[in-house]
Amino acid sequence: MSTTDYKFEGWVGHDKDSVGNLKFGTFEPKTWTEDDVDIKIEFCGICSSDLHTLRSGWGPTDYPQVVGHEIAGKAVRVGSNVKGIKLGDRIGVGAQSGSCLACEDCNKQKESYCANPPGMIPTYGGKYADGSKSTGGYANYARVPSHFCIPIPEGIPSEIAAPMMCGGVTVYSPLKQNNVGPGMNVGIVGIGGLGHFGLLFAKALGARVTAISRSRSKEADARELGADDFIATSEEGWVQKYARHFDLIVCTANNADMPLAEYCTTLKVGHGKFVMVGAPEEAITFSVFPLLMANVSIGGSLIGSPSEIREMLELAVKANVRSWIEVRDLKDVNQALIDMEDGKPRFRYVLKCD
Amino acid sequence: MSTTDYKFEGWVGHDKDSVGNLKFGTFEPKTWTEDDVDIKIEFCGICSSDLHTLRSGWGPTDYPQVVGHEIAGKAVRVGSNVKGIKLGDRIGVGAQSGSCLACEDCNKQKESYCANPPGMIPTYGGKYADGSKSTGGYANYARVPSHFCIPIPEGIPSEIAAPMMCGGVTVYSPLKQNNVGPGMNVGIVGIGGLGHFGLLFAKALGARVTAISRSRSKEADARELGADDFIATSEEGWVQKYARHFDLIVCTANNADMPLAEYCTTLKVGHGKFVMVGAPEEAITFSVFPLLMANVSIGGSLIGSPSEIREMLELAVKANVRSWIEVRDLKDVNQALIDMEDGKPRFRYVLKCD
Repeated sequence: MSTTDYKFEGWVGHDKDSVGNLKFGTFEPKTWTEDDVDIKIEFCGICSSDLHTLRSGWGPTDYPQVVGHEIAGKAVRVGSNVKGIKLGDRIGVGAQSGSCLACEDCNKQKESYCANPPGMIPTYGGKYADGSKSTGGYANYARVPSHFCIPIPEGIPSEIAAPMMCGGVTVYSPLKQNNVGPGMNVGIVGIGGLGHFGLLFAKALGARVTAISRSRSKEADARELGADDFIATSEEGWVQKYARHFDLIVCTANNADMPLAEYCTTLKVGHGKFVMVGAPEEAITFSVFPLLMANVSIGGSLIGSPSEIREMLELAVKANVRSWIEVRDLKDVNQALIDMEDGKPRFRYVLKCD
Repeated sequence: MSTTDYKFEGWVGHDKDSVGNLKFGTFEPKTWTEDDVDIKIEFCGICSSDLHTLRSGWGPTDYPQVVGHEIAGKAVRVGSNVKGIKLGDRIGVGAQSGSCLACEDCNKQKESYCANPPGMIPTYGGKYADGSKSTGGYANYARVPSHFCIPIPEGIPSEIAAPMMCGGVTVYSPLKQNNVGPGMNVGIVGIGGLGHFGLLFAKALGARVTAISRSRSKEADARELGADDFIATSEEGWVQKYARHFDLIVCTANNADMPLAEYCTTLKVGHGKFVMVGAPEEAITFSVFPLLMANVSIGGSLIGSPSEIREMLELAVKANVRSWIEVRDLKDVNQALIDMEDGKPRFRYVLKCD
């Protein structure tokens, strides 16, 4: 039997200036149901979504807010309806913790695109059908519906698995959707938290991988992560050199002023695709001509599904994929957020929560 | 034997104010080679590209310019290297009259995306490798490399075939590229010259077709053209009603202020695609969120290949597809251009050139 007399405590954002100003305190998790799992959090990655949300960058945030959606921990309470998870199992939770589980998209394992009320419920910043709020992983415990609790395979340490739950699957999903494998040329724009996973997983899937960044400051890291090639977009000549080269580019950059027209011309005619997984807070402006002239497309992809997380973790075991992380103590979360905002992590901060 | 002592005469644009101000005169066709065909033009459709080009809307135009790239006529001179075309054959020519015919894209029958110098040579406004200019169909004769001369099957009158050569294949190509057929929901944005072909060909391919326009002014025509359904985007509620409905939307509109985010939400999750075939002269501004949230993509497609034109003409014979046209005399071309600019054609003007 498990004890359930624990309190939920964590680092809470109270307003749009809370990056670096989270306050420690108790919070109310979702209302317990027998479909849920309580997780004693061991580690939680810091994702740039946490920063966007804390500062209300993607629209008004419903404060108070406990962010963090790259959770790894142990099941300490398991609802009576839950199948496949038992007390003590290591569990990961990503950016989604709810959906209708009944619509066409959920049935196709496209849960992150569920539009059936209450729709896609994010791990923090969302509301369940009963009105209770979802709460994230900068905390000691998390309560999550079991469909979104993914067992972590043996052979992947919890701190390595944690940032894969959002950062990893966000790039793994478009790679899989576009059937990345041997013989394909894949570009990864932005060598940060998401981008480093892009290099790791594209390589693990057998593609020829090119890291794309403004400067060469991360070239050595990118090559160590598996990049076969490197483009610095601040240098002349890359557009001509890589004309019609890529089958797929996954763009993890968050800036709206990216050279979109130039990227289009580096895609292969017909099936070439530029997929955005980062969401700039501002609108982007582009001319339609490069799309027409190259017969290519621009797409978007939002996190990944529970089934894709399972697949990704299996691949990580098989191909020995390891997140590059720096572990920070949860009590130092405010400094970690400031360092994150300054672009310091190489490539992911993971909070140690117990 | 054919006589070759004809002069090339037509309606010439001399500056960016030449919409409605073309002057009749002689012009120099491309330098003859034994790969070419001279065509006595019977009909030439008026395409909005002609207007964009005459007013230098897509960048500076190299005046003088004879526009027109929806040509139907008869072969009156056939080069000794030409196969499959003989004197007197009815021939159609679309928006492209040259490419390298040797690169990977040309070999994949993607000639319109050829980037190998001299690259994709448009039927007017282009330059061949020898420096001579390509000239269009507002004229008595055209000289065109035979690869881009498409025999018109019996059963399609020349005036019906003419506007299919660009307007028709420009929408047929993305329909085919996206495997449109029975069971698919296809939307066509903009019920004009291109859009009316979109309705006709999507229907002929077996899809369920929705016409999309600002108002209902063209609803009766659209339904007669084969539309099963009609959306007026100026009315409330269409976005909700058609949420995640379309497998494909082909957008023929030329305006940059289209409701792109709303269109994205009417596409099916995963494979749903919005393909632009019209090119607004201004850049488009949009938020990346709808692409991410719906897991859809925005693409572009440029005219179509000779092999697609052949396929389209075969389908037109089989399914009895007929362009909706109004025939105008070539001598009245200036008024026809003004009427075209005013959006009067229902749905294509075709100039009678002989």
